Amino acid sequence: MPASPIRKLIPYAEKARDKGVHIFHLNIGQPDIETPKVVLDAIKNNDLKVIEYSHSAGMESYRRKLVNYYSRYQISVDYTDIMITTGGSEAIEIAMMTCLNEGDEIIIPEPFYANYIGFGTQAGVTIKPIISSIEDGFALPPISEFEKIIGPKTKAIMICNPSNPTGYLYSREELEALRNLVLKYDLYLFSDEVYREFCYDGKQSFSVLNLEGVENNAVMIDSVSKRYSACGVRVGALVSRNKELMATALKFAQARLSPPTFGQIASEAAIQTTSEYFKKVNNEYKARRDFIVDALNTMEGVICPKPSGAFYVIAQLPVDDSDKFCQWMLESFSHNDQTVMMAPASGFYSSPGFGKNQVRIAYVLNLESLRSAMECLKAGLEAYPGRVIPAPEESRSSVN
Amino acid sequence: MPASPIRKLIPYAEKARDKGVHIFHLNIGQPDIETPKVVLDAIKNNDLKVIEYSHSAGMESYRRKLVNYYSRYQISVDYTDIMITTGGSEAIEIAMMTCLNEGDEIIIPEPFYANYIGFGTQAGVTIKPIISSIEDGFALPPISEFEKIIGPKTKAIMICNPSNPTGYLYSREELEALRNLVLKYDLYLFSDEVYREFCYDGKQSFSVLNLEGVENNAVMIDSVSKRYSACGVRVGALVSRNKELMATALKFAQARLSPPTFGQIASEAAIQTTSEYFKKVNNEYKARRDFIVDALNTMEGVICPKPSGAFYVIAQLPVDDSDKFCQWMLESFSHNDQTVMMAPASGFYSSPGFGKNQVRIAYVLNLESLRSAMECLKAGLEAYPGRVIPAPEESRSSVN
Repeated sequence: MPASPIRKLIPYAEKARDKGVHIFHLNIGQPDIETPKVVLDAIKNNDLKVIEYSHSAGMESYRRKLVNYYSRYQISVDYTDIMITTGGSEAIEIAMMTCLNEGDEIIIPEPFYANYIGFGTQAGVTIKPIISSIEDGFALPPISEFEKIIGPKTKAIMICNPSNPTGYLYSREELEALRNLVLKYDLYLFSDEVYREFCYDGKQSFSVLNLEGVENNAVMIDSVSKRYSACGVRVGALVSRNKELMATALKFAQARLSPPTFGQIASEAAIQTTSEYFKKVNNEYKARRDFIVDALNTMEGVICPKPSGAFYVIAQLPVDDSDKFCQWMLESFSHNDQTVMMAPASGFYSSPGFGKNQVRIAYVLNLESLRSAMECLKAGLEAYPGRVIPAPEESRSSVN
Repeated sequence: MPASPIRKLIPYAEKARDKGVHIFHLNIGQPDIETPKVVLDAIKNNDLKVIEYSHSAGMESYRRKLVNYYSRYQISVDYTDIMITTGGSEAIEIAMMTCLNEGDEIIIPEPFYANYIGFGTQAGVTIKPIISSIEDGFALPPISEFEKIIGPKTKAIMICNPSNPTGYLYSREELEALRNLVLKYDLYLFSDEVYREFCYDGKQSFSVLNLEGVENNAVMIDSVSKRYSACGVRVGALVSRNKELMATALKFAQARLSPPTFGQIASEAAIQTTSEYFKKVNNEYKARRDFIVDALNTMEGVICPKPSGAFYVIAQLPVDDSDKFCQWMLESFSHNDQTVMMAPASGFYSSPGFGKNQVRIAYVLNLESLRSAMECLKAGLEAYPGRVIPAPEESRSSVN
């Protein structure tokens, strides 16, 4: 596997730090928000004497509480429809291994979460990308585009909703269009919904499990990492009403024995997190998004759609190559001894050449830091030797 | 993947429990020993505010302490030679994906840990077994047997030392013979050493990393699960001095982000576990092994070698089929309202037909319980309708 564009930047970030430059880390989805106290307390107050394996599908008590949690989103499932995994990552891996064979294809709108490529490689599955465009705010591409590449090896379609890296929140209508498509071609529909709680402007996420008529097709990927700012507990879930699928998934789960015990204790306690916590966190993220999207769009030559979910935006920058620009920001630039680390968007496209002038920005720092970071970015864009102000007809994000 | 013989027994165990029969669980390697207090306290006293991802290769502080831990076993490694994984399971998975390609072969003496098959399936790797025999106490098969099946697709040899499921402790001489073999054919040598601490009769385990001249071939799999009776923390390690191998392994590790944070906190604290703890635990296991091996060998028609490591024995029973016998013990038998659950050995062989009259017994219960369990087993063997006392020439464990 080649190193991702973000990882290639790490040595440059280390060198910048060694020079005494402060780096605003907008490159990763590691929130600065505190984990709810109820979660931290559950770990401190645990009274285990032997840290045993849990059930391979996860602790039953936790799975039963998750049923209640999902019912708050009108998702009606039985606890046997839920398998606890080691992070959302493992849920994706197991879903791919369960539903697809070596050489099968999965269609994913791009830009998509870079690690999907790694999971595909591990499962021996080919990812077929479909471009979604910055001009449409990364909405679902037309269904006709999917149909063009559906072939005999196509076994599944996968979305991330709300999306990492675009923040796009798929509408009910888009989900229903996907439902009709997977029914027509008998495909699985995977939906990575780990940012469910992070929807703004009064919008709500619509789960793949809220769709009717695709009980055997729908597979939901979940994780507590972002929801409770608890990435390190490594607890996710694979949820499907397809009993045969869940039985096969359990065999993969049994091979790795069990998900982490302390993480499950933390996650079970997390179900008690109050709606006030989420309200406060959402208000904070919304304020950050509003600030950052405005700040970006007032910079000359920058285009940034305003997404309704997650805590990421993709921005198009007036640069020759965002891989080079992101490296230059770390290697050769500072503004008041500060600089910004961003994720070059090329890592979120599997189609070569796409995303060349885009970056992903995670708004996981407080407003004050974001303000300084945007000042840095503005100054950086003005000073960057590879600056390109595209003519209107060249402003499309894609190469052809 | 087919269900394993152990898992097939679970519904029968549930029914027996429902009838009020007490089951002695000798079927799984879940120790009853208490986790060291220093480990439990580290979790209770943690003061994290945000449960963040750790480094994909694990927390540097923990990796640096592991260097000291390994030096106690004369294993000299740098912290960059160590990658922390989500249990030993993930270390095996990543080792296979890193070192072998789709369709490549790995040779493993059998009986072997049943989950190796699952990891092989996931990595698209073919496991080529070589029979080790109960008559030799499951010693390393002759090197000539390995050479017979080494072909162009063979990329690695794997052992578990001390072994689950046999308890066999490989000698330095056996390790050196394997070293010469992997050098001759340019193969990787994987060694799963998660039972390192559990060696008896004054013997010590000899690590694959203690071998000279195979720095680029040797890959050690480790885990804290058994060492500290902390299976639920899900923390293992992949250790190799082969820098290129470790760089590739890191890419797989990055795809799944990080191993569990609380598990790493627990494991780092565990390095402080006193030698008194291990001495006490070892004395306990040794007493159990001595008891159980004696008890088994005094039963008519039972053969059980006395292994020097881990906490398992494989016993040959005077039965027609140990899958059937283990099921019968749960379904149709009880002695003073008690019965015994064991692992049919067929699950530890990938060669069809082998292990048909063998079981694996994990001595993970205290002596009093083991005494009652052995009484049950004796009574069960006497009452079992499929009892077969083999004639001497038929007493071999294998079919041909």
